[in-house]
Amino acid sequence: MPHPSTRILALAGGVGGAKLALGLAAALPAEALTVAVNTADDFEHLGLSISPDLDTVMYTLAGIANPETGWGRRDETWAVMDALGQLGAETWFRLGDRDLATHIVRTRRLRAGARLSEVTRELAQRLGVKCAIVPMTDDPVRTIVSTDQGDLAFQDWFVRLHCEPAVRAIRFAGAETATPHPALREPRDLRGLVVCPSNPFVSVAPILAIPGVRNTIEGLRIPRVAVTPIVGGQAIKGPAAKMLAELGHDVSALGVARYYAGLIDGFLLDRTDAALAPAIEALGIKVQVTDTMMRNDLDKRRLAATTLEFVDALASSLRHS
Amino acid sequence: MPHPSTRILALAGGVGGAKLALGLAAALPAEALTVAVNTADDFEHLGLSISPDLDTVMYTLAGIANPETGWGRRDETWAVMDALGQLGAETWFRLGDRDLATHIVRTRRLRAGARLSEVTRELAQRLGVKCAIVPMTDDPVRTIVSTDQGDLAFQDWFVRLHCEPAVRAIRFAGAETATPHPALREPRDLRGLVVCPSNPFVSVAPILAIPGVRNTIEGLRIPRVAVTPIVGGQAIKGPAAKMLAELGHDVSALGVARYYAGLIDGFLLDRTDAALAPAIEALGIKVQVTDTMMRNDLDKRRLAATTLEFVDALASSLRHS
Repeated sequence: MPHPSTRILALAGGVGGAKLALGLAAALPAEALTVAVNTADDFEHLGLSISPDLDTVMYTLAGIANPETGWGRRDETWAVMDALGQLGAETWFRLGDRDLATHIVRTRRLRAGARLSEVTRELAQRLGVKCAIVPMTDDPVRTIVSTDQGDLAFQDWFVRLHCEPAVRAIRFAGAETATPHPALREPRDLRGLVVCPSNPFVSVAPILAIPGVRNTIEGLRIPRVAVTPIVGGQAIKGPAAKMLAELGHDVSALGVARYYAGLIDGFLLDRTDAALAPAIEALGIKVQVTDTMMRNDLDKRRLAATTLEFVDALASSLRHS
Repeated sequence: MPHPSTRILALAGGVGGAKLALGLAAALPAEALTVAVNTADDFEHLGLSISPDLDTVMYTLAGIANPETGWGRRDETWAVMDALGQLGAETWFRLGDRDLATHIVRTRRLRAGARLSEVTRELAQRLGVKCAIVPMTDDPVRTIVSTDQGDLAFQDWFVRLHCEPAVRAIRFAGAETATPHPALREPRDLRGLVVCPSNPFVSVAPILAIPGVRNTIEGLRIPRVAVTPIVGGQAIKGPAAKMLAELGHDVSALGVARYYAGLIDGFLLDRTDAALAPAIEALGIKVQVTDTMMRNDLDKRRLAATTLEFVDALASSLRHS
């Protein structure tokens, strides 16, 4: 008798990924959800090891994310930042007081030789997160954005320069020698793979760039679905639309679906973009039209439920194909 | 014509030293005061480089010291500490939010290869301190307290164990290979040397333990005075009295004067202890009886003025001897 295939593996970046992960966590038993998170926008700042996407996912699943900023912790204060400014330190990357504790603990553990996946598990446990949050790799991978102003480290481009320099290309330094997390290298007992509504180019692409991950996903015989990060030609948050345009893609959900072609079996398209469904289905990708905007927790749970139903529907069609 | 001898070199530890340094700073032009500070109770904690005595002196001279605790900054908040506790990190050494910014900047600069003296100068300048605050050395020196419970790192004994284990001996790991700060190695244009009312065993002794410092001070032909840290057989703050007893000294200002014999020409004795003056003078040390308790800024300025007058009075007697 085959082992029951019960697990959902979700690929996530920051805010959008974290929101759907929260919906999935509400819909699934804790042991049935693994969220594999982009770490290519991690960086070292003020001597601290900062993992923005891991923290956004962790804080969101712990119920302590800041709903206004989309990053950091809720009920945050800024005393350290103010004092850092007084001492002449850089303050363009805002680190709240409570958030800083995370970076202090992470930095100390990493310096002591712990793996990022261990530290993430410890932190998440302390914050009461039940499901598994795993970094895409324990090795350092860093997104470099080639722009009209030269090559920029991701956070320089994203935060310090407010995404303004036009993007020419993106690469993931260190990816070629990184080892994927076991959850990505040898996914087991999967019911389905969910590509969260995260930025395809700087959240999902780095995960796929780790050697073996793309091949593994291409070879999976379970439903693989992506939730659109683009609605009505706009990114819900962040620079995904700007990147689609500057990298020569269609600035639409269709552009994203084309980017994921070969990797996914299904695409969750927003109702606004229903007219794009035939063009996406022509790529060999099934489409589920639904409301993809996650304004509140009910939206997140509803979208997660729709995603899981889509996965299960695809499973029977995969079995019959 | 000889260069005018105008500078005061003060040796200081934490609270008591910082208070007298503030009085001296009010009495002297900025360029006439150098405060050489103990760094043997520095330590690494939560991955940060912490210099408690340097910071107490710096915060005090900047007017931002916390008057209630005797350490850290005034108007402090504790959000990072609370969050560190939530994450399971050690919280026995209390680090305020604003204070943490100092440690973050120091740690980053030291890791980048800066000397502690450079970092201290940068931080003090940023906080508006005008006189020179220098670490006794740029090299790591660490106080180890041998106790009835074994050898303990200083902050373990001092903060975590509340000075409870009985002290058998004290040593300064790394002192033997440390290079003194130039202000201690080759003091120039000195009007006088002031040993502040700091703990003789763990604040002043480490400075004297740096190779060459004791010899240099012994050879100085300018007045060298100490202000008593013991009044009425009690330490004004901290474990000095307990250490005097456990290390077999007289628990009194006389015990301290004996400890400094050969190094100082004058001793500022509290009025409470005036009866000890003859015994101290019998050591070949001149005595000035005065009020040594520094309860407020006026006390600090008054004690500093008395100390400077004593220095100048000793100068004429040294010239005539």
